[in-house]
Amino acid sequence: MNDSATKPADTRARYRHFQKIPTRWSDNDIYGHVNNVVYYSYFDTVVNTYLIERGALDIANSPVIGLAVESLCTFKKELTYPETIDAGLRVGRLGNTSVRYEIGIFRAGEDDPAATGYFVHVYVDRVTRKPVALPEPLRRVLAPLLAGPIKKTAAGGGGPRRG
Amino acid sequence: MNDSATKPADTRARYRHFQKIPTRWSDNDIYGHVNNVVYYSYFDTVVNTYLIERGALDIANSPVIGLAVESLCTFKKELTYPETIDAGLRVGRLGNTSVRYEIGIFRAGEDDPAATGYFVHVYVDRVTRKPVALPEPLRRVLAPLLAGPIKKTAAGGGGPRRG
Amino acid sequence: MNDSATKPADTRARYRHFQKIPTRWSDNDIYGHVNNVVYYSYFDTVVNTYLIERGALDIANSPVIGLAVESLCTFKKELTYPETIDAGLRVGRLGNTSVRYEIGIFRAGEDDPAATGYFVHVYVDRVTRKPVALPEPLRRVLAPLLAGPIKKTAAGGGGPRRG
Amino acid sequence: MNDSATKPADTRARYRHFQKIPTRWSDNDIYGHVNNVVYYSYFDTVVNTYLIERGALDIANSPVIGLAVESLCTFKKELTYPETIDAGLRVGRLGNTSVRYEIGIFRAGEDDPAATGYFVHVYVDRVTRKPVALPEPLRRVLAPLLAGPIKKTAAGGGGPRRG
Repeated sequence: MNDSATKPADTRARYRHFQKIPTRWSDNDIYGHVNNVVYYSYFDTVVNTYLIERGALDIANSPVIGLAVESLCTFKKELTYPETIDAGLRVGRLGNTSVRYEIGIFRAGEDDPAATGYFVHVYVDRVTRKPVALPEPLRRVLAPLLAGPIKKTAAGGGGPRRG
Repeated sequence: MNDSATKPADTRARYRHFQKIPTRWSDNDIYGHVNNVVYYSYFDTVVNTYLIERGALDIANSPVIGLAVESLCTFKKELTYPETIDAGLRVGRLGNTSVRYEIGIFRAGEDDPAATGYFVHVYVDRVTRKPVALPEPLRRVLAPLLAGPIKKTAAGGGGPRRG
Repeated sequence: MNDSATKPADTRARYRHFQKIPTRWSDNDIYGHVNNVVYYSYFDTVVNTYLIERGALDIANSPVIGLAVESLCTFKKELTYPETIDAGLRVGRLGNTSVRYEIGIFRAGEDDPAATGYFVHVYVDRVTRKPVALPEPLRRVLAPLLAGPIKKTAAGGGGPRRG
Repeated sequence: MNDSATKPADTRARYRHFQKIPTRWSDNDIYGHVNNVVYYSYFDTVVNTYLIERGALDIANSPVIGLAVESLCTFKKELTYPETIDAGLRVGRLGNTSVRYEIGIFRAGEDDPAATGYFVHVYVDRVTRKPVALPEPLRRVLAPLLAGPIKKTAAGGGGPRRG
């Protein structure tokens, strides 16, 4: 859908961090595949796990929390239960008060994604819900996730191959 | 996010069908509001209820089913449990093999949306999963949902007011 | 399953409060019926909506919250999406620090339940998570839900038919 | 709750099969812990993954499917997101047309369960939904899960330590 011929494929090499997520019985809908809604719960899970495990977010107590202002997902291949998928994560844009997280969902052993998407978090004061500058610890753990310029030559970074 | 000053607000008047959805305990996340993922389950629910109740989709047996190829949601206001929201539905584009469903989520008594979004369904053969032309009964029930041109004058269809 | 010939049926008349819950697309699993797990989310929803709407629970701020210590559900008939079910609620036991909520799930227009179950809440201090006596406002709104003795005479559990 | 002093603790040694399940963002509810409903989705997941991976259940095509007739869960300790739990599985009773699956949920490195429960599946014809004898392949993969007699001697339920 999103990938025109001129745009390099959004392969694993373009993501900076990965988390394995086993699908669950309840992920399947009546059509026998993972329901479209569930992909967004994978997005939430990979982003917040990354932040919490690195000490940049304490969901019970942090005075600053991230609220979703927009999300999108493009679905390319069906997933099912049971299987274990890899959720790839990078940061597309690191703003003053917001972050654009970009996620690729990959089936085991496959290099072209089953789905790609993003969500934008605005960081707000937990109580007033007004936007605030990204806390320094958050900025520090996000920096390594910043997507670099797309290298044309590398395997996984482009070229004509697609599944 | 999506609404520039030159674009009329996406009020109730711009949707053709509404369904009431009471929120559930499980819709709330740790931040005390409806989680962003759950909005997409409201999208699925309003679209498919509309189709099933009008006989255009039999989820257990229809030889043609709709698969999501892309979805997006822009979040404007927080929702919580318990409350009953109105999910507004219109069809943004009725293609040969695909439909773009557009959804607005409204709090009770409010005319500007808490969230707006869409998802695109491609209709496929249930077994082969190859795209097929929209079945005639489906096309018939979707036609009344087609968004007309935006009227500038009507209440709810535009003007400067926004919350 | 649970109802032997000597035990009166757990009909609508035996519940004290009802809430309508429309099923959602995501409630259905691959077998085309509401997944067993989802019934428990109906339980949570009817209990907490009742408490919140009567001012006996403020989920964001109450110093005392209810934690589930045990739940059970017996499944008698399949439910599906879309339909709107009635969740019936009564209190089976009102203890010093705990409450046994009993729930019956009914299909529209049917008097014998699609499922029955319970969950036991122990009320604890939000911070220490130690059991505390039920707050007086909670006790007050629960009293009218207390299940009376079962009347033997009428089919369906007896008593004047409830709306 | 369920475990009196005279009853041996329901430790890991009493389960025959384990699956790791990472919790998800959406598992947490407003109280900052895994919602009681979600435990039942872990139950579904460990049972069906076991059956599917061993070829005893094809959820899309099996002519015989298991329907839940009763489930129960006793909650002993809170879980949260993110963490990875171990779901332990054994078969409590292998009947002619039904199976009682017993599940223990364990936090990493802990030997006493965070929750224990069961659900009973009746196996039915997929189309008629009438009970049928357990298919032989199913019975074969379930036999090794049968809980043996409880050994009294060792702490933790006894026997050679399981990995």
